[in-house]
Amino acid sequence: MIRLNLKEVEENLKNQDEWILVDERWIERKFRFKEYLKGIEFINQVANIAEKVNHHPFISIDYKLITLKMSSWKSKGLTQQDFDVAKKFDEIYTEMNKD
Amino acid sequence: MIRLNLKEVEENLKNQDEWILVDERWIERKFRFKEYLKGIEFINQVANIAEKVNHHPFISIDYKLITLKMSSWKSKGLTQQDFDVAKKFDEIYTEMNKD
Repeated sequence: MIRLNLKEVEENLKNQDEWILVDERWIERKFRFKEYLKGIEFINQVANIAEKVNHHPFISIDYKLITLKMSSWKSKGLTQQDFDVAKKFDEIYTEMNKD
Repeated sequence: MIRLNLKEVEENLKNQDEWILVDERWIERKFRFKEYLKGIEFINQVANIAEKVNHHPFISIDYKLITLKMSSWKSKGLTQQDFDVAKKFDEIYTEMNKD
């Protein structure tokens, strides 16, 4: 996958503005949950997608606060795949919190 | 829970020597898995225990490498509970890798 330039990264971030750019080569988003085990359920769904598309975010779980951080290490930066996968994670979170 | 002094902490670490002391108030252990989703299965079991005993480790997932880090923030340091819960996590890992 081709690494995106900064302009392309910023263009993507306009549409996914809950993600922030870290060190110019990572995108990161924090997800908050009302219940601890709901957060773990989210991790399970995220992990299943990650494994399916073979693109695994760095995950940290600090009680009810979950952070996902992604980059495309083979491309030494961000690619369109990072944003595509990020979108899937956003959708899972939205779906889980819609009620 | 009463905070353990350094001597008591070191005594516990002798018996659980895969855990290391970090900044004098955390214990940390890294768990490696052959498959990504096995690591996620481990997280599920860890989280269920954490919720049951109301003592939640900080978890990070870096592909097949999982780090658990614990402290008793209410006691401003390590307590016997940290080591007791750590032991349960060790047992889960041993159980998952015995075949």
